[in-house]
Amino acid sequence: MIFNNLKNKNIILASKSPRRKQLLEELGLTFEVKVKSGIDETWNKELKPEQVAGYLAEHKAKQYEHEITENQILITADTIVCKDNDILNKPADYDDAVRMLDLLSDGKHLVITGVCIKSLDRSVSFSCTTEVYFKHLCEEEIDYYIENYKPYDKAGSYGIQEWIGYIGIDKIVGSFYNVMGLPVQKIYEELKKF
Amino acid sequence: MIFNNLKNKNIILASKSPRRKQLLEELGLTFEVKVKSGIDETWNKELKPEQVAGYLAEHKAKQYEHEITENQILITADTIVCKDNDILNKPADYDDAVRMLDLLSDGKHLVITGVCIKSLDRSVSFSCTTEVYFKHLCEEEIDYYIENYKPYDKAGSYGIQEWIGYIGIDKIVGSFYNVMGLPVQKIYEELKKF
Repeated sequence: MIFNNLKNKNIILASKSPRRKQLLEELGLTFEVKVKSGIDETWNKELKPEQVAGYLAEHKAKQYEHEITENQILITADTIVCKDNDILNKPADYDDAVRMLDLLSDGKHLVITGVCIKSLDRSVSFSCTTEVYFKHLCEEEIDYYIENYKPYDKAGSYGIQEWIGYIGIDKIVGSFYNVMGLPVQKIYEELKKF
Repeated sequence: MIFNNLKNKNIILASKSPRRKQLLEELGLTFEVKVKSGIDETWNKELKPEQVAGYLAEHKAKQYEHEITENQILITADTIVCKDNDILNKPADYDDAVRMLDLLSDGKHLVITGVCIKSLDRSVSFSCTTEVYFKHLCEEEIDYYIENYKPYDKAGSYGIQEWIGYIGIDKIVGSFYNVMGLPVQKIYEELKKF
């Protein structure tokens, strides 16, 4: 109903994140998930942190470029966590997860999601930034979270929708769903134009 | 583990909201829900909007005052939606819901949740405010939402965790869970002191 212009389109979400799939479903869209593995996720170190997520989303979209067919719309995304201009990736192991959560504790960081939406005749990419404020996290809370939630697949070692987000975050500025992995409101606006 | 001081306490959530129950569960707490019906929810019109939710939470807690036993901790809450100093209640009917969403469209409003936490020997109450920014909502989107989600039990006629929150809200300032009905991070901090 709302997406009359998308009626004959096949939307492809090129992300293996179950959270992104869930968020896109909440828009009421029909789509399929298609993922290529082995895409290089490094970037030129001269990029500014706020450019990295957008660059990676576009880079991912490029890997599908030759496969896009008529009526298809491809969506790719990348989320980074940025603390004082350093980018936090997925933690390598337990100690690395502790190190990241210690770093995020008691202060502000940025979560930036880059998105690329691409059809045969149109391509748009944008980044969306949310400020996230963590309260002080004590050692016991950090250990409890890592042991029980194993955030090894998450940039910055946390999911805002998990226990640590409930007990540790009292303020964000921007989109909540962007922190989870997709700025769904902006995606909705852009899709209406496709 | 985290709540050592609460081990022998019986927490009572005095709210019939399934969203509040779900939010409190995410803290990892064990509690029971106990609700009195027929509590008067009017307030003195001389109260400022930012005082109303706190007043109502305390007023609700008072209704249970004589029943609190040793080791019990009672939690009550009230959430209001405030646009340009007017308080929006639950909508009376379809047209009232349309009116409220038209009012909230394309601008900022406040969601204020007041909380009262009470044991035999301690009582604390506080309010938590989140700014919410709606994009422009068109007639079609408003109708689609009301028809499909029937937000008649929700102050301001919307749930941020429902479709309209995904397509319409691109920014908040403050706690997301506070908009859903409980400022869980602040409740967690306070419970640690009980």
